[in-house]
Amino acid sequence: MTRYTHLARVSGAAAVLIALPALGLAQEADTTPTNAEIGFIFTTFMFLVAGFLVFFMAAGFAMLEAGLVRGKNVTMQLTKNMALFSLASIFYYILGYNLMYPGDAWTMDGILGAFAITGLEPVGLEAAEPDLTYASVGSDFFFQLMFCAATASIVSGALAERIKLWPFLAFVIVLTAVIYPVQASWKWGGGFLDGMGFQDFAGSTVVHSVGGWAALMGAIILGPRIGKYGKDGRVTPMPGSNLALATLGTFILWLGWFGFNGGSQLYMDSAANVADISRIFSNTNTAAAAGAVVALILTQLLYKKPDLTMILNGALAGLVSITAEPLTPSLISSTLIGGVGGLIVVLTVPMLDRLKIDDVVGAIPVHLFAGIWGTIAVVFTNDAANIVTQLTSIVIVGAFVCATSALVWLVLKATVGIRVSEEAEITGLDTTELGMEAYPEFSRG
Amino acid sequence: MTRYTHLARVSGAAAVLIALPALGLAQEADTTPTNAEIGFIFTTFMFLVAGFLVFFMAAGFAMLEAGLVRGKNVTMQLTKNMALFSLASIFYYILGYNLMYPGDAWTMDGILGAFAITGLEPVGLEAAEPDLTYASVGSDFFFQLMFCAATASIVSGALAERIKLWPFLAFVIVLTAVIYPVQASWKWGGGFLDGMGFQDFAGSTVVHSVGGWAALMGAIILGPRIGKYGKDGRVTPMPGSNLALATLGTFILWLGWFGFNGGSQLYMDSAANVADISRIFSNTNTAAAAGAVVALILTQLLYKKPDLTMILNGALAGLVSITAEPLTPSLISSTLIGGVGGLIVVLTVPMLDRLKIDDVVGAIPVHLFAGIWGTIAVVFTNDAANIVTQLTSIVIVGAFVCATSALVWLVLKATVGIRVSEEAEITGLDTTELGMEAYPEFSRG
Amino acid sequence: MTRYTHLARVSGAAAVLIALPALGLAQEADTTPTNAEIGFIFTTFMFLVAGFLVFFMAAGFAMLEAGLVRGKNVTMQLTKNMALFSLASIFYYILGYNLMYPGDAWTMDGILGAFAITGLEPVGLEAAEPDLTYASVGSDFFFQLMFCAATASIVSGALAERIKLWPFLAFVIVLTAVIYPVQASWKWGGGFLDGMGFQDFAGSTVVHSVGGWAALMGAIILGPRIGKYGKDGRVTPMPGSNLALATLGTFILWLGWFGFNGGSQLYMDSAANVADISRIFSNTNTAAAAGAVVALILTQLLYKKPDLTMILNGALAGLVSITAEPLTPSLISSTLIGGVGGLIVVLTVPMLDRLKIDDVVGAIPVHLFAGIWGTIAVVFTNDAANIVTQLTSIVIVGAFVCATSALVWLVLKATVGIRVSEEAEITGLDTTELGMEAYPEFSRG
Repeated sequence: MTRYTHLARVSGAAAVLIALPALGLAQEADTTPTNAEIGFIFTTFMFLVAGFLVFFMAAGFAMLEAGLVRGKNVTMQLTKNMALFSLASIFYYILGYNLMYPGDAWTMDGILGAFAITGLEPVGLEAAEPDLTYASVGSDFFFQLMFCAATASIVSGALAERIKLWPFLAFVIVLTAVIYPVQASWKWGGGFLDGMGFQDFAGSTVVHSVGGWAALMGAIILGPRIGKYGKDGRVTPMPGSNLALATLGTFILWLGWFGFNGGSQLYMDSAANVADISRIFSNTNTAAAAGAVVALILTQLLYKKPDLTMILNGALAGLVSITAEPLTPSLISSTLIGGVGGLIVVLTVPMLDRLKIDDVVGAIPVHLFAGIWGTIAVVFTNDAANIVTQLTSIVIVGAFVCATSALVWLVLKATVGIRVSEEAEITGLDTTELGMEAYPEFSRG
Repeated sequence: MTRYTHLARVSGAAAVLIALPALGLAQEADTTPTNAEIGFIFTTFMFLVAGFLVFFMAAGFAMLEAGLVRGKNVTMQLTKNMALFSLASIFYYILGYNLMYPGDAWTMDGILGAFAITGLEPVGLEAAEPDLTYASVGSDFFFQLMFCAATASIVSGALAERIKLWPFLAFVIVLTAVIYPVQASWKWGGGFLDGMGFQDFAGSTVVHSVGGWAALMGAIILGPRIGKYGKDGRVTPMPGSNLALATLGTFILWLGWFGFNGGSQLYMDSAANVADISRIFSNTNTAAAAGAVVALILTQLLYKKPDLTMILNGALAGLVSITAEPLTPSLISSTLIGGVGGLIVVLTVPMLDRLKIDDVVGAIPVHLFAGIWGTIAVVFTNDAANIVTQLTSIVIVGAFVCATSALVWLVLKATVGIRVSEEAEITGLDTTELGMEAYPEFSRG
Repeated sequence: MTRYTHLARVSGAAAVLIALPALGLAQEADTTPTNAEIGFIFTTFMFLVAGFLVFFMAAGFAMLEAGLVRGKNVTMQLTKNMALFSLASIFYYILGYNLMYPGDAWTMDGILGAFAITGLEPVGLEAAEPDLTYASVGSDFFFQLMFCAATASIVSGALAERIKLWPFLAFVIVLTAVIYPVQASWKWGGGFLDGMGFQDFAGSTVVHSVGGWAALMGAIILGPRIGKYGKDGRVTPMPGSNLALATLGTFILWLGWFGFNGGSQLYMDSAANVADISRIFSNTNTAAAAGAVVALILTQLLYKKPDLTMILNGALAGLVSITAEPLTPSLISSTLIGGVGGLIVVLTVPMLDRLKIDDVVGAIPVHLFAGIWGTIAVVFTNDAANIVTQLTSIVIVGAFVCATSALVWLVLKATVGIRVSEEAEITGLDTTELGMEAYPEFSRG
């Protein structure tokens, strides 16, 4: 039986497009794309698939963080994650995207992008002169937005369990609308770091260290949780309330990273490009595995017992480490690069504690320290990278993000305050700030 | 080294297909699709990807609902969700799909589709005369099935914590085999609403309001949970047992919605179509974000504390609102459309309580009220839409679904009964009806 | 405004590739793939999408198992799942992949593959002579790795709650580096079972029964949990701690199975192939649904109450059953094949208990028994299959896996020991072996 599914359902706006003869696109029949269109379709669809994978990382961060905070702060952590993603989605199109990708409309050449609300191509591309050599603006915007939101997610974990909701969200707005896009334009928008030859394929520096620096500034200015560091130097463990959720979150992040790194190939319009995306998927997976295995072995050796939260963070550190260059390494090199990431996490989590910098979920070791390592490691496998340029770029981005983040945190602290009351912190943010427990029926042991 | 992976693994049935010379498909070499095939491959694969995203919404509904019911009813809610999806999968192919897409085989022209079991194309398309202008029947069936199942998922949340399992499943069978497909045929099968010019791109009315109306009839006929509404008008909150799961469910639904709305473009065989799908992804995300942000701000203003469950439902209402027209709005329009969705949820949840209609998860505000809003909002951005036609169609679909649903609910109530015993409801459905607790080890506070 | 997103971001390694004129690929412009490339891009991208779906099954197994063990062993189960996937990712590239797909480099023709570390194609395919008739090695490796890891995941559930971590991981290494790849080469690498005409489309035998046999040997050698089987023949139920997680895990596995079975078509370069993948998606979904529905009805009939864990395992058994031949059945045949899978689970779970074989999550009924059934059922719908060959192959694979697995388990038992101390088992592995509880704040009832 002949089906009229398509004839029936497209009778509205979509039908108009099918009829559309404009631009010489799809002239013969709608189902026979021209040669020029095929590469465009491949790359655009790749961005959409990669983009929804990176989108799902928002859920990964939410579950990881909800699992690693104590039960009394879970609703707050979930609320922050929902709110930060939503705010990033709005402020990135209002300001961020054009600041990051100004094209030829820089406000200050190579340094400060364009101030303009994001406009997508017209429906059906009609009346546009589409550049079919890349992908649709809509798919690029969708994909890039997810990187911006991920940067904000990194911050929320580190500052959990004591920061006020609204000042945190105010910081998220500045981060996603301005701080992240401006420094990202320096590399990915074609700005001065790109001109210098800085290499950062998918954002060990541009995304992860930026989130990490912002979190570090916040953690220092906010101070540690009450009771975390005793006067005698003793560190009180504050174990996460739900390691199943934390593990789920890690797996979701791992999944999303295939889109994060794979999509950053930016083209899927040739055999060479799709083969490269395949290399990236394989290398990304291998680095994550190596980070987890190193953390597994190392915690067994150091503490006589494997530590699941370290294994989770080891996998994530492996992922961050390979992000600056997931294409050129071999599988063996990816193993080494990711493995060092795992090593870094196991060694630096206690270091932060000695410095009394309280990072609830380990975001700073994972995203900042492994991000720096990954950015440096590019030079081992990619001849286009130069160690001096890599280090210079790490420092420039770090200095910019630390300065701007610290400024915002200090202004917020001096005005509205960024920390909940001592009583609220001890009681838990869920009941005091939100009046809603995440697990209201389960009594605490 | 040359790989023989493919040579080795395809030696069975698949190898036959590769050899198949029928139909002039892939004549030169298997790896060089003809021009006519390329559009077909793109659109078919797009349906499969969009379809698995919408499939995953079944998990999203299950987690959302399991998180929003009380601990004593979680196993039952999970059971209902597994069972309803499974039953929908079977009854949609036995009856639903051909009722919805009768092609030229209407039983009553434009009103009642065809009664026939779904048959897929033959393996390798051999012996078929494939219409390469659209997509494979298998991919279309897979995609459309997921919409049908989603409609049933909407109902299960609203009626949680007091409805009997088997009568609920009986209703699901009627809904997925008959009620949903018949009204969907009126628009998407090319029936009389489509002829009138009704616009509903991805189903604010066809899917969401249908689930919502069915839930509303069920909630009225079933009555509220014991103790929910006091005689003095006081509403007793019955907080959800696991907000982490509810948040996870919301993120999964949000993810699935990219497939829900994006796949409803129905074609990915041209630059114009894939660019439109990109617009849809971006608009869908923006509307969800706006719904969440409005709920965040509004609950802060109204109740002095942000309410996570409202934020989750706000995001979902934003998604439902943009579903009738995710293509034509700009990002700013999407923000407004989704934001109004969030507003509707925050304002109508208490309204339902005043009417003593007990909707456990807020499904009626999210899917019905925001669905109506979204269907109306089409007229603001799509010139093909007409307010009178939109309203007429909303009323026609609503009247049909209310009448048929109420009939089924009333027959079930009069015969087998639809409500568990008072004792079972108070004790919890998990122990009384299923003998299995979801969290058996955790004592209740 | 013209966007320079792509110009800006590709300035590093990727830009080199775009310039690359080698191989006659993409000569005109990067966005216009040649006809020979298009099929390669389609199939490669299909493997990446299918591969990330199968990857996500690792999370599915982790959640399913974490939900079905008792609260005192959840951290251990999560740790095992993270570790086994990570180890599989490394040992499969070091040994497994070339053992499984030796091409023309068999060590023993058709029986033992090649010993070589996996090398991916060079970046940008330059200096390679790519075979554009299939897909990139990177995508094939990525996809195949996930099958290997799934095999190991099957084992971890059955042996939960009493096996030591490190011996279990030692077994995983042997399984993923040697046992799985060697027997898989017999069929999918073009070895002697393939030569005999054995049919196993996506691995009811090659993957699922292999995991099942390895689990069975482990369960017998390891022995049941303390207190599970009384001397009087009484079986003590040890209910899972979190059925919401178990349900989530099942939905994730169901999702991943679309990639598992769909990707096993191995080609998406023609209308015929993508239509076949669509058939596979639809059949896979239908079989899962039927398995769940049969378990729902049967547990109602047998025990007067539906059993959610049986319904979950019924869905999984439906999936395993259709995996040997997801292409040729009609939707009705898929319903029957999957339904029998559900029947098998409900009937054989108590049988294993009578044999005092303690399989914590039901992995042996689901993966082994339904896997055997699925392999036999191929003969009903695929004329290329022969019942004698199917049974012979089942026995050969089973004998090999049982012998090698038992050997490894016995060696481990005789040397390092495979079982935790009685005290550790009673107290729970989380505190005794790992010093970390999954839900530290929630007191046990």
